[in-house]
Amino acid sequence: MIIDKLYERVAEKGFVCVGLDPVFDNLPEKYKELGVTKGLFKFNKEIIDATKDLVAIYKPQIAFYEAYGLDGLKAYKKTVKYLKKQDLLSIGDIKRGDISSTAKMYAKGHFESELATDFITLNPYMGFDSVEPYLPYLESGDKGVFVLLRTSNPGAKDIEYMIQEDGRPLYYTIGDKLEEMGKAFIGDHGYSALGMVVGGTHSEEAVEIREKYKTTFFLIPGYGAQGGKAEDIRNYLNNFNGGIVNSSRGIINNYKNYPDGEEKVGHYARMAVEAMKKDIFDYE
Amino acid sequence: MIIDKLYERVAEKGFVCVGLDPVFDNLPEKYKELGVTKGLFKFNKEIIDATKDLVAIYKPQIAFYEAYGLDGLKAYKKTVKYLKKQDLLSIGDIKRGDISSTAKMYAKGHFESELATDFITLNPYMGFDSVEPYLPYLESGDKGVFVLLRTSNPGAKDIEYMIQEDGRPLYYTIGDKLEEMGKAFIGDHGYSALGMVVGGTHSEEAVEIREKYKTTFFLIPGYGAQGGKAEDIRNYLNNFNGGIVNSSRGIINNYKNYPDGEEKVGHYARMAVEAMKKDIFDYE
Repeated sequence: MIIDKLYERVAEKGFVCVGLDPVFDNLPEKYKELGVTKGLFKFNKEIIDATKDLVAIYKPQIAFYEAYGLDGLKAYKKTVKYLKKQDLLSIGDIKRGDISSTAKMYAKGHFESELATDFITLNPYMGFDSVEPYLPYLESGDKGVFVLLRTSNPGAKDIEYMIQEDGRPLYYTIGDKLEEMGKAFIGDHGYSALGMVVGGTHSEEAVEIREKYKTTFFLIPGYGAQGGKAEDIRNYLNNFNGGIVNSSRGIINNYKNYPDGEEKVGHYARMAVEAMKKDIFDYE
Repeated sequence: MIIDKLYERVAEKGFVCVGLDPVFDNLPEKYKELGVTKGLFKFNKEIIDATKDLVAIYKPQIAFYEAYGLDGLKAYKKTVKYLKKQDLLSIGDIKRGDISSTAKMYAKGHFESELATDFITLNPYMGFDSVEPYLPYLESGDKGVFVLLRTSNPGAKDIEYMIQEDGRPLYYTIGDKLEEMGKAFIGDHGYSALGMVVGGTHSEEAVEIREKYKTTFFLIPGYGAQGGKAEDIRNYLNNFNGGIVNSSRGIINNYKNYPDGEEKVGHYARMAVEAMKKDIFDYE
Protein backbone atom coordinates (compact mmCIF):
# COMPACT_ATOMS: atom_id res chain seq x y z
CA MET A 1 0.00 0.00 0.00
CA ILE A 2 1.11 3.54 -0.76
CA ILE A 3 0.82 4.50 2.92
CA ASP A 4 3.34 1.78 3.77
CA LYS A 5 5.66 3.11 1.13
CA LEU A 6 5.37 6.58 2.63
CA TYR A 7 6.00 5.17 6.12
CA GLU A 8 9.14 3.46 4.81
CA ARG A 9 10.34 6.63 3.11
CA VAL A 10 9.96 8.46 6.42
CA ALA A 11 11.96 5.72 8.15
CA GLU A 12 14.64 5.95 5.48
CA LYS A 13 14.85 9.67 4.71
CA GLY A 14 13.07 11.44 7.56
CA PHE A 15 9.77 13.23 7.98
CA VAL A 16 10.23 16.20 5.65
CA CYS A 17 7.64 17.03 3.01
CA VAL A 18 8.74 19.79 0.65
CA GLY A 19 5.96 22.03 -0.60
CA LEU A 20 6.55 23.00 -4.22
CA ASP A 21 4.76 26.36 -4.23
CA PRO A 22 6.90 28.62 -6.41
CA VAL A 23 5.54 32.05 -7.33
CA PHE A 24 6.61 32.42 -10.95
CA ASP A 25 6.69 36.23 -10.85
CA ASN A 26 9.20 36.12 -7.97
CA LEU A 27 11.58 33.50 -9.39
CA PRO A 28 15.19 34.34 -10.22
CA GLU A 29 15.57 35.87 -13.68
CA LYS A 30 17.19 32.75 -15.15
CA TYR A 31 13.94 30.84 -14.54
CA LYS A 32 11.62 33.65 -15.53
CA GLU A 33 13.24 33.98 -18.92
CA LEU A 34 12.28 30.37 -19.68
CA GLY A 35 8.59 31.25 -19.51
CA VAL A 36 5.97 29.90 -17.13
CA THR A 37 5.97 26.18 -17.97
CA LYS A 38 9.71 25.62 -18.21
CA GLY A 39 10.57 28.20 -15.58
CA LEU A 40 8.36 26.67 -12.91
CA PHE A 41 9.38 23.14 -13.83
CA LYS A 42 13.13 23.82 -13.91
CA PHE A 43 12.93 25.58 -10.56
CA ASN A 44 11.12 22.59 -9.05
CA LYS A 45 13.60 20.21 -10.67
CA GLU A 46 16.50 22.02 -9.09
CA ILE A 47 14.85 21.76 -5.66
CA ILE A 48 14.00 18.08 -6.17
CA ASP A 49 17.44 17.10 -7.47
CA ALA A 50 19.16 18.76 -4.55
CA THR A 51 16.99 17.34 -1.78
CA LYS A 52 15.59 13.96 -2.84
CA ASP A 53 17.77 11.83 -0.57
CA LEU A 54 16.61 13.84 2.47
CA VAL A 55 12.92 14.16 1.71
CA ALA A 56 10.05 11.69 2.22
CA ILE A 57 7.62 13.27 -0.23
CA TYR A 58 6.97 16.37 -2.33
CA LYS A 59 3.78 18.39 -2.26
CA PRO A 60 3.06 20.71 -5.18
CA GLN A 61 0.30 23.18 -4.27
CA ILE A 62 -1.80 23.32 -7.43
CA ALA A 63 -2.93 26.94 -6.91
CA PHE A 64 0.58 28.13 -7.75
CA TYR A 65 0.19 26.50 -11.17
CA GLU A 66 -3.50 27.26 -11.80
CA ALA A 67 -2.56 30.92 -11.25
CA TYR A 68 -0.96 30.91 -14.71
CA GLY A 69 -3.64 28.96 -16.55
CA LEU A 70 -2.72 26.08 -18.83
CA ASP A 71 0.97 26.98 -18.99
CA GLY A 72 1.13 26.76 -15.21
CA LEU A 73 -0.72 23.47 -15.14
CA LYS A 74 1.69 22.08 -17.72
CA ALA A 75 4.46 22.76 -15.20
CA TYR A 76 2.43 20.91 -12.57
CA LYS A 77 2.08 17.97 -14.92
CA LYS A 78 5.79 17.95 -15.72
CA THR A 79 6.64 18.15 -12.03
CA VAL A 80 4.50 15.21 -10.97
CA LYS A 81 5.75 13.20 -13.94
CA TYR A 82 9.36 13.94 -13.00
CA LEU A 83 8.72 12.78 -9.44
CA LYS A 84 7.04 9.58 -10.59
CA LYS A 85 9.84 8.76 -13.02
CA GLN A 86 12.29 8.68 -10.14
CA ASP A 87 9.95 6.81 -7.83
CA LEU A 88 9.63 9.84 -5.57
CA LEU A 89 6.32 10.21 -3.76
CA SER A 90 3.93 13.10 -4.33
CA ILE A 91 0.95 14.80 -2.70
CA GLY A 92 -1.22 16.95 -4.94
CA ASP A 93 -2.28 19.71 -2.56
CA ILE A 94 -5.62 20.37 -4.20
CA LYS A 95 -8.02 20.55 -1.21
CA ARG A 96 -10.97 19.63 -3.39
CA GLY A 97 -14.34 18.95 -1.84
CA ASP A 98 -17.62 18.50 -3.67
CA ILE A 99 -20.71 16.35 -4.08
CA SER A 100 -20.28 12.72 -5.01
CA SER A 101 -20.70 12.95 -8.80
CA THR A 102 -18.22 15.83 -8.92
CA ALA A 103 -15.79 14.19 -6.50
CA LYS A 104 -15.65 11.19 -8.84
CA MET A 105 -14.39 13.50 -11.57
CA TYR A 106 -11.78 15.10 -9.32
CA ALA A 107 -10.65 11.60 -8.36
CA LYS A 108 -10.32 10.72 -12.03
CA GLY A 109 -8.28 13.87 -12.66
CA HIS A 110 -5.97 13.64 -9.70
CA PHE A 111 -5.61 9.86 -9.38
CA GLU A 112 -5.81 8.75 -13.02
CA SER A 113 -4.98 11.52 -15.49
CA GLU A 114 -1.61 13.02 -16.37
CA LEU A 115 -2.08 15.27 -13.30
CA ALA A 116 -2.19 12.25 -10.96
CA THR A 117 -0.21 12.11 -7.73
CA ASP A 118 0.14 9.38 -5.08
CA PHE A 119 -1.82 11.34 -2.47
CA ILE A 120 -4.16 14.30 -2.60
CA THR A 121 -5.58 16.63 0.03
CA LEU A 122 -9.34 16.97 0.49
CA ASN A 123 -11.70 19.46 2.16
CA PRO A 124 -14.49 17.79 4.19
CA TYR A 125 -16.85 20.78 4.55
CA MET A 126 -19.62 19.33 2.37
CA GLY A 127 -19.69 16.10 4.38
CA PHE A 128 -18.41 12.57 4.28
CA ASP A 129 -20.18 11.74 1.02
CA SER A 130 -17.70 14.17 -0.53
CA VAL A 131 -14.85 11.91 0.69
CA GLU A 132 -16.34 8.53 -0.22
CA PRO A 133 -15.71 8.63 -3.99
CA TYR A 134 -11.96 8.55 -3.28
CA LEU A 135 -12.14 5.42 -1.13
CA PRO A 136 -12.05 2.84 -3.95
CA TYR A 137 -8.62 4.23 -4.86
CA LEU A 138 -7.51 3.72 -1.25
CA GLU A 139 -8.95 0.22 -1.35
CA SER A 140 -6.79 -0.55 -4.39
CA GLY A 141 -3.70 0.23 -2.30
CA ASP A 142 -2.29 2.63 -4.89
CA LYS A 143 -3.50 5.95 -3.53
CA GLY A 144 -4.02 7.89 -0.33
CA VAL A 145 -5.71 11.07 0.86
CA PHE A 146 -5.13 13.64 3.58
CA VAL A 147 -8.37 15.27 4.70
CA LEU A 148 -8.25 18.74 6.29
CA LEU A 149 -8.90 18.51 10.00
CA ARG A 150 -7.24 21.37 11.85
CA THR A 151 -5.27 23.72 9.69
CA SER A 152 -2.42 26.04 10.59
CA ASN A 153 -3.82 29.39 9.46
CA PRO A 154 -5.29 32.02 11.82
CA GLY A 155 -8.77 31.50 10.33
CA ALA A 156 -8.84 27.88 11.52
CA LYS A 157 -10.57 29.20 14.64
CA ASP A 158 -13.53 30.54 12.60
CA ILE A 159 -15.02 27.16 11.72
CA GLU A 160 -12.73 24.22 12.49
CA TYR A 161 -12.40 25.13 16.19
CA MET A 162 -16.05 26.07 16.75
CA ILE A 163 -17.44 24.45 19.87
CA GLN A 164 -20.31 22.07 19.14
CA GLU A 165 -23.39 21.21 21.14
CA ASP A 166 -21.42 18.39 22.81
CA GLY A 167 -18.79 20.84 24.07
CA ARG A 168 -16.07 19.70 21.67
CA PRO A 169 -14.51 21.61 18.79
CA LEU A 170 -15.79 20.73 15.32
CA TYR A 171 -12.52 19.10 14.29
CA TYR A 172 -13.13 16.26 16.74
CA THR A 173 -16.52 15.57 15.19
CA ILE A 174 -14.80 15.32 11.85
CA GLY A 175 -11.71 13.50 13.07
CA ASP A 176 -13.71 10.78 14.86
CA LYS A 177 -15.61 10.01 11.70
CA LEU A 178 -12.54 10.08 9.46
CA GLU A 179 -10.59 7.80 11.81
CA GLU A 180 -13.48 5.36 11.64
CA MET A 181 -13.69 5.57 7.83
CA GLY A 182 -9.93 5.04 7.66
CA LYS A 183 -9.97 1.73 9.55
CA ALA A 184 -10.71 -0.09 6.32
CA PHE A 185 -7.43 1.06 4.77
CA ILE A 186 -4.77 0.35 7.38
CA GLY A 187 -1.44 -0.84 6.02
CA ASP A 188 1.29 -3.13 7.37
CA HIS A 189 2.79 -0.42 9.53
CA GLY A 190 -0.46 0.40 11.32
CA TYR A 191 -1.43 3.61 9.54
CA SER A 192 -4.40 4.24 7.29
CA ALA A 193 -4.24 5.49 3.71
CA LEU A 194 -6.89 7.96 4.85
CA GLY A 195 -4.73 10.56 6.57
CA MET A 196 -5.50 13.94 8.08
CA VAL A 197 -4.04 17.43 7.84
CA VAL A 198 -3.29 18.80 11.30
CA GLY A 199 -1.52 22.14 11.53
CA GLY A 200 1.71 22.52 13.44
CA THR A 201 0.54 25.84 14.87
CA HIS A 202 -1.79 26.57 17.83
CA SER A 203 -1.27 22.96 18.81
CA GLU A 204 -1.79 22.83 22.56
CA GLU A 205 -3.80 19.69 21.90
CA ALA A 206 -1.19 17.97 19.73
CA VAL A 207 -0.61 15.19 22.25
CA GLU A 208 -4.33 14.61 22.64
CA ILE A 209 -4.93 14.47 18.90
CA ARG A 210 -1.98 12.14 18.37
CA GLU A 211 -3.23 9.74 21.04
CA LYS A 212 -6.82 9.92 19.89
CA TYR A 213 -6.18 9.10 16.24
CA LYS A 214 -3.64 6.32 16.63
CA THR A 215 -4.02 4.80 13.18
CA THR A 216 -3.99 8.11 11.34
CA PHE A 217 -0.95 9.38 9.50
CA PHE A 218 -0.68 13.16 9.70
CA LEU A 219 0.30 15.73 7.13
CA ILE A 220 1.52 18.61 9.29
CA PRO A 221 1.72 22.00 7.59
CA GLY A 222 2.69 25.28 9.16
CA TYR A 223 6.31 24.70 10.08
CA GLY A 224 8.47 27.73 9.39
CA ALA A 225 6.72 30.53 7.51
CA GLN A 226 3.40 29.87 9.26
CA GLY A 227 4.93 29.75 12.76
CA GLY A 228 4.68 26.03 13.63
CA LYS A 229 7.13 25.16 16.41
CA ALA A 230 9.40 22.15 16.72
CA GLU A 231 7.92 21.20 20.10
CA ASP A 232 4.35 21.05 18.83
CA ILE A 233 5.36 19.18 15.75
CA ARG A 234 7.25 16.53 17.72
CA ASN A 235 4.08 15.86 19.66
CA TYR A 236 2.29 14.89 16.47
CA LEU A 237 5.01 12.69 15.11
CA ASN A 238 4.68 9.57 17.27
CA ASN A 239 8.35 8.77 17.64
CA PHE A 240 8.96 10.41 14.25
CA ASN A 241 7.00 7.83 12.29
CA GLY A 242 3.36 8.95 12.33
CA GLY A 243 3.43 11.86 10.01
CA ILE A 244 5.22 14.16 7.61
CA VAL A 245 6.03 17.80 8.24
CA ASN A 246 5.60 20.19 5.36
CA SER A 247 7.59 23.29 4.72
CA SER A 248 7.23 25.23 1.49
CA ARG A 249 8.52 28.79 1.48
CA GLY A 250 11.06 28.08 4.25
CA ILE A 251 12.77 25.60 1.95
CA ILE A 252 12.22 26.67 -1.64
CA ASN A 253 12.85 30.35 -0.92
CA ASN A 254 15.80 29.88 1.41
CA TYR A 255 18.07 31.01 -1.45
CA LYS A 256 16.73 34.53 -0.98
CA ASN A 257 18.64 34.81 2.28
CA TYR A 258 22.05 34.58 0.60
CA PRO A 259 23.93 36.93 -1.74
CA ASP A 260 24.75 34.06 -4.09
CA GLY A 261 21.32 32.45 -3.58
CA GLU A 262 20.03 32.80 -7.12
CA GLU A 263 22.94 30.72 -8.38
CA LYS A 264 22.44 28.02 -5.76
CA VAL A 265 18.70 27.54 -5.28
CA GLY A 266 19.03 23.78 -4.76
CA HIS A 267 21.97 24.07 -2.39
CA TYR A 268 20.14 26.46 -0.07
CA ALA A 269 16.96 24.39 -0.23
CA ARG A 270 19.00 21.41 0.93
CA MET A 271 20.49 23.47 3.75
CA ALA A 272 16.98 24.43 4.85
CA VAL A 273 15.85 20.79 4.85
CA GLU A 274 18.85 19.83 6.97
CA ALA A 275 18.22 22.70 9.38
CA MET A 276 14.55 21.78 9.67
CA LYS A 277 15.35 18.18 10.54
CA LYS A 278 17.88 19.24 13.13
CA ASP A 279 15.46 21.77 14.64
CA ILE A 280 12.71 19.21 15.10
CA PHE A 281 14.90 16.25 16.03
CA ASP A 282 17.09 18.05 18.52
CA TYR A 283 14.40 20.04 20.27
CA GLU A 284 14.58 19.74 24.03
CA MET B 1 -20.76 45.99 -10.56
CA ILE B 2 -20.92 42.44 -11.81
CA ILE B 3 -23.59 41.57 -9.23
CA ASP B 4 -25.81 44.29 -10.72
CA LYS B 5 -25.23 42.85 -14.16
CA LEU B 6 -26.27 39.45 -12.88
CA TYR B 7 -29.34 40.93 -11.22
CA GLU B 8 -30.30 42.57 -14.51
CA ARG B 9 -29.78 39.34 -16.43
CA VAL B 10 -32.13 37.60 -14.01
CA ALA B 11 -34.70 40.37 -14.53
CA GLU B 12 -34.34 40.04 -18.28
CA LYS B 13 -33.93 36.30 -18.85
CA GLY B 14 -35.04 34.62 -15.63
CA PHE B 15 -33.30 32.88 -12.76
CA VAL B 16 -31.82 29.84 -14.50
CA CYS B 17 -28.15 28.97 -14.15
CA VAL B 18 -27.05 26.14 -16.42
CA GLY B 19 -24.35 23.90 -15.01
CA LEU B 20 -21.94 22.82 -17.73
CA ASP B 21 -20.84 19.49 -16.26
CA PRO B 22 -20.53 17.14 -19.24
CA VAL B 23 -19.00 13.71 -18.68
CA PHE B 24 -16.89 13.22 -21.79
CA ASP B 25 -17.07 9.41 -21.69
CA ASN B 26 -20.87 9.57 -21.80
CA LEU B 27 -21.25 12.12 -24.61
CA PRO B 28 -22.93 11.21 -27.91
CA GLU B 29 -20.52 9.59 -30.35
CA LYS B 30 -20.34 12.66 -32.61
CA TYR B 31 -18.72 14.62 -29.77
CA LYS B 32 -16.53 11.81 -28.52
CA GLU B 33 -14.94 11.35 -31.91
CA LEU B 34 -13.69 14.96 -31.75
CA GLY B 35 -11.49 14.13 -28.76
CA VAL B 36 -11.65 15.58 -25.27
CA THR B 37 -10.96 19.27 -25.90
CA LYS B 38 -13.13 19.77 -28.96
CA GLY B 39 -15.75 17.25 -27.88
CA LEU B 40 -16.40 18.89 -24.52
CA PHE B 41 -16.29 22.38 -26.00
CA LYS B 42 -18.60 21.65 -28.93
CA PHE B 43 -21.09 19.99 -26.60
CA ASN B 44 -21.07 23.05 -24.33
CA LYS B 45 -21.35 25.34 -27.33
CA GLU B 46 -24.45 23.55 -28.53
CA ILE B 47 -26.05 23.92 -25.08
CA ILE B 48 -25.08 27.60 -24.83
CA ASP B 49 -26.22 28.50 -28.35
CA ALA B 50 -29.62 26.89 -27.80
CA THR B 51 -30.35 28.42 -24.41
CA LYS B 52 -28.61 31.78 -24.06
CA ASP B 53 -31.72 33.95 -24.39
CA LEU B 54 -33.37 32.04 -21.53
CA VAL B 55 -30.46 31.74 -19.12
CA ALA B 56 -29.00 34.26 -16.65
CA ILE B 57 -25.58 32.65 -16.28
CA TYR B 58 -23.58 29.49 -17.03
CA LYS B 59 -21.64 27.51 -14.45
CA PRO B 60 -18.95 25.13 -15.70
CA GLN B 61 -17.93 22.72 -12.90
CA ILE B 62 -14.16 22.52 -13.29
CA ALA B 63 -13.90 18.93 -11.97
CA PHE B 64 -15.48 17.68 -15.20
CA TYR B 65 -12.57 19.22 -17.10
CA GLU B 66 -9.75 18.48 -14.63
CA ALA B 67 -10.82 14.84 -14.91
CA TYR B 68 -9.17 14.74 -18.35
CA GLY B 69 -6.01 16.67 -17.48
CA LEU B 70 -4.78 19.46 -19.70
CA ASP B 71 -7.01 18.51 -22.64
CA GLY B 72 -10.04 18.83 -20.38
CA LEU B 73 -8.87 22.15 -18.99
CA LYS B 74 -8.40 23.44 -22.53
CA ALA B 75 -12.10 22.79 -23.06
CA TYR B 76 -12.84 24.73 -19.86
CA LYS B 77 -10.74 27.62 -21.17
CA LYS B 78 -12.47 27.57 -24.55
CA THR B 79 -15.88 27.45 -22.87
CA VAL B 80 -15.30 30.46 -20.61
CA LYS B 81 -13.76 32.37 -23.52
CA TYR B 82 -16.79 31.60 -25.69
CA LEU B 83 -19.12 32.87 -22.97
CA LYS B 84 -17.13 36.06 -22.48
CA LYS B 85 -17.01 36.77 -26.22
CA GLN B 86 -20.78 36.91 -26.29
CA ASP B 87 -21.07 38.87 -23.06
CA LEU B 88 -22.66 35.89 -21.31
CA LEU B 89 -21.97 35.62 -17.59
CA SER B 90 -20.07 32.75 -16.01
CA ILE B 91 -19.45 31.13 -12.64
CA GLY B 92 -16.38 28.94 -12.32
CA ASP B 93 -17.59 26.26 -9.94
CA ILE B 94 -14.20 25.60 -8.37
CA LYS B 95 -15.00 25.52 -4.61
CA ARG B 96 -11.43 26.42 -3.72
CA GLY B 97 -10.52 27.19 -0.13
CA ASP B 98 -7.01 27.63 1.21
CA ILE B 99 -4.69 29.81 3.30
CA SER B 100 -4.21 33.40 2.29
CA SER B 101 -1.00 33.07 0.23
CA THR B 102 -2.52 30.16 -1.70
CA ALA B 103 -5.91 31.84 -2.09
CA LYS B 104 -4.16 34.77 -3.77
CA MET B 105 -2.86 32.37 -6.40
CA TYR B 106 -6.29 30.81 -6.94
CA ALA B 107 -7.70 34.32 -7.32
CA LYS B 108 -5.06 35.09 -9.92
CA GLY B 109 -5.89 31.91 -11.81
CA HIS B 110 -9.64 32.19 -11.74
CA PHE B 111 -10.06 35.97 -11.91
CA GLU B 112 -7.10 36.99 -14.08
CA SER B 113 -5.76 34.14 -16.21
CA GLU B 114 -7.23 32.56 -19.34
CA LEU B 115 -9.34 30.42 -16.98
CA ALA B 116 -11.04 33.50 -15.50
CA THR B 117 -14.80 33.70 -15.00
CA ASP B 118 -17.03 36.48 -13.65
CA PHE B 119 -17.84 34.63 -10.45
CA ILE B 120 -16.29 31.69 -8.65
CA THR B 121 -17.47 29.45 -5.82
CA LEU B 122 -15.44 29.16 -2.59
CA ASN B 123 -15.27 26.75 0.34
CA PRO B 124 -15.06 28.51 3.74
CA TYR B 125 -13.89 25.55 5.88
CA MET B 126 -10.42 26.98 6.60
CA GLY B 127 -11.89 30.25 7.86
CA PHE B 128 -12.58 33.76 6.71
CA ASP B 129 -8.93 34.55 5.99
CA SER B 130 -9.34 32.05 3.16
CA VAL B 131 -12.06 34.29 1.67
CA GLU B 132 -10.36 37.67 2.16
CA PRO B 133 -7.84 37.46 -0.71
CA TYR B 134 -10.75 37.50 -3.16
CA LEU B 135 -12.27 40.70 -1.75
CA PRO B 136 -10.11 43.20 -3.67
CA TYR B 137 -11.59 41.74 -6.85
CA LEU B 138 -15.08 42.33 -5.45
CA GLU B 139 -14.07 45.86 -4.48
CA SER B 140 -13.07 46.50 -8.10
CA GLY B 141 -16.63 45.73 -9.15
CA ASP B 142 -15.55 43.26 -11.83
CA LYS B 143 -15.88 40.00 -9.94
CA GLY B 144 -18.07 38.16 -7.47
CA VAL B 145 -17.96 35.02 -5.33
CA PHE B 146 -20.46 32.52 -3.99
CA VAL B 147 -19.31 30.96 -0.74
CA LEU B 148 -20.65 27.54 0.26
CA LEU B 149 -23.12 27.87 3.11
CA ARG B 150 -25.64 25.04 3.06
CA THR B 151 -25.22 22.61 0.24
CA SER B 152 -27.75 20.27 -1.34
CA ASN B 153 -26.03 16.90 -0.89
CA PRO B 154 -26.97 14.35 1.81
CA GLY B 155 -23.61 14.87 3.56
CA ALA B 156 -24.45 18.52 4.27
CA LYS B 157 -25.79 17.29 7.62
CA ASP B 158 -22.35 15.95 8.65
CA ILE B 159 -20.68 19.33 9.17
CA GLU B 160 -22.70 22.25 7.80
CA TYR B 161 -25.78 21.45 9.89
CA MET B 162 -23.92 20.55 13.10
CA ILE B 163 -25.44 22.27 16.12
CA GLN B 164 -23.04 24.66 17.81
CA GLU B 165 -22.63 25.63 21.44
CA ASP B 166 -25.12 28.46 20.88
CA GLY B 167 -27.80 26.01 19.70
CA ARG B 168 -27.65 27.05 16.06
CA PRO B 169 -26.43 25.05 13.09
CA LEU B 170 -22.91 25.86 11.88
CA TYR B 171 -24.16 27.41 8.66
CA TYR B 172 -25.64 30.33 10.58
CA THR B 173 -22.28 31.04 12.23
CA ILE B 174 -20.77 31.17 8.77
CA GLY B 175 -23.65 32.99 7.11
CA ASP B 176 -23.72 35.77 9.71
CA LYS B 177 -20.06 36.49 9.18
CA LEU B 178 -20.28 36.31 5.39
CA GLU B 179 -23.30 38.64 5.30
CA GLU B 180 -21.30 41.11 7.38
CA MET B 181 -18.23 40.80 5.11
CA GLY B 182 -20.46 41.28 2.08
CA LYS B 183 -21.87 44.62 3.23
CA ALA B 184 -18.87 46.38 1.72
CA PHE B 185 -19.75 45.16 -1.77
CA ILE B 186 -23.45 45.90 -2.21
CA GLY B 187 -24.50 47.00 -5.67
CA ASP B 188 -27.22 49.30 -6.98
CA HIS B 189 -29.89 46.64 -6.72
CA GLY B 190 -29.23 45.90 -3.04
CA TYR B 191 -27.28 42.66 -3.32
CA SER B 192 -23.67 42.01 -2.43
CA ALA B 193 -21.01 40.67 -4.80
CA LEU B 194 -20.25 38.24 -1.96
CA GLY B 195 -23.00 35.67 -2.49
CA MET B 196 -23.71 32.34 -0.85
CA VAL B 197 -24.51 28.82 -2.05
CA VAL B 198 -27.69 27.54 -0.41
CA GLY B 199 -29.01 24.19 -1.52
CA GLY B 200 -32.54 23.80 -2.82
CA THR B 201 -32.97 20.53 -0.93
CA HIS B 202 -33.83 19.90 2.75
CA SER B 203 -34.83 23.52 2.91
CA GLU B 204 -37.41 23.78 5.66
CA GLU B 205 -35.58 26.92 6.72
CA ALA B 206 -35.52 28.53 3.28
CA VAL B 207 -37.81 31.39 4.34
CA GLU B 208 -35.75 32.03 7.46
CA ILE B 209 -32.46 32.07 5.56
CA ARG B 210 -33.90 34.35 2.89
CA GLU B 211 -35.13 36.84 5.49
CA LYS B 212 -31.98 36.69 7.55
CA TYR B 213 -29.55 37.40 4.72
CA LYS B 214 -31.41 40.15 2.91
CA THR B 215 -28.47 41.60 1.00
CA THR B 216 -27.13 38.23 -0.10
CA PHE B 217 -27.63 36.88 -3.59
CA PHE B 218 -28.01 33.10 -3.57
CA LEU B 219 -26.67 30.46 -5.90
CA ILE B 220 -29.15 27.63 -5.41
CA PRO B 221 -28.01 24.19 -6.54
CA GLY B 222 -29.87 20.94 -6.21
CA TYR B 223 -32.88 21.50 -8.45
CA GLY B 224 -33.75 18.41 -10.46
CA ALA B 225 -31.23 15.58 -10.24
CA GLN B 226 -30.48 16.29 -6.57
CA GLY B 227 -34.14 16.50 -5.56
CA GLY B 228 -34.61 20.24 -4.92
CA LYS B 229 -38.30 21.16 -5.06
CA ALA B 230 -39.95 24.14 -6.69
CA GLU B 231 -41.60 25.20 -3.45
CA ASP B 232 -38.37 25.39 -1.47
CA ILE B 233 -36.60 27.17 -4.27
CA ARG B 234 -39.29 29.83 -4.55
CA ASN B 235 -38.77 30.59 -0.88
CA TYR B 236 -35.17 31.52 -1.55
CA LEU B 237 -35.79 33.64 -4.58
CA ASN B 238 -37.20 36.83 -3.04
CA ASN B 239 -39.82 37.58 -5.64
CA PHE B 240 -37.59 35.87 -8.24
CA ASN B 241 -34.80 38.42 -8.01
CA GLY B 242 -32.54 37.36 -5.15
CA GLY B 243 -30.84 34.36 -6.60
CA ILE B 244 -30.14 31.99 -9.42
CA VAL B 245 -31.19 28.35 -9.57
CA ASN B 246 -28.71 25.90 -10.99
CA SER B 247 -29.51 22.77 -12.88
CA SER B 248 -26.83 20.75 -14.58
CA ARG B 249 -27.67 17.18 -15.49
CA GLY B 250 -31.40 17.91 -15.73
CA ILE B 251 -30.68 20.32 -18.57
CA ILE B 252 -27.57 19.16 -20.39
CA ASN B 253 -28.58 15.48 -20.32
CA ASN B 254 -32.25 15.98 -21.15
CA TYR B 255 -31.47 14.76 -24.68
CA LYS B 256 -31.04 11.26 -23.26
CA ASN B 257 -34.79 11.04 -22.66
CA TYR B 258 -35.65 11.17 -26.37
CA PRO B 259 -35.06 8.73 -29.24
CA ASP B 260 -33.71 11.53 -31.46
CA GLY B 261 -31.92 13.18 -28.51
CA GLU B 262 -28.36 12.78 -29.72
CA GLU B 263 -29.21 14.78 -32.84
CA LYS B 264 -30.86 17.56 -30.86
CA VAL B 265 -28.87 18.09 -27.68
CA GLY B 266 -29.43 21.86 -27.69
CA HIS B 267 -33.12 21.61 -28.47
CA TYR B 268 -33.80 19.30 -25.53
CA ALA B 269 -31.64 21.41 -23.22
CA ARG B 270 -33.79 24.39 -24.15
CA MET B 271 -36.95 22.39 -23.45
CA ALA B 272 -35.58 21.51 -20.02
CA VAL B 273 -34.82 25.16 -19.24
CA GLU B 274 -38.34 26.14 -20.25
CA ALA B 275 -39.85 23.33 -18.17
CA MET B 276 -37.75 24.30 -15.16
CA LYS B 277 -38.88 27.92 -15.32
CA LYS B 278 -42.50 26.88 -15.61
CA ASP B 279 -42.17 24.43 -12.73
CA ILE B 280 -40.76 27.03 -10.37
CA PHE B 281 -42.84 30.00 -11.54
CA ASP B 282 -46.17 28.22 -11.62
CA TYR B 283 -45.84 26.29 -8.39
CA GLU B 284 -48.87 26.71 -6.15
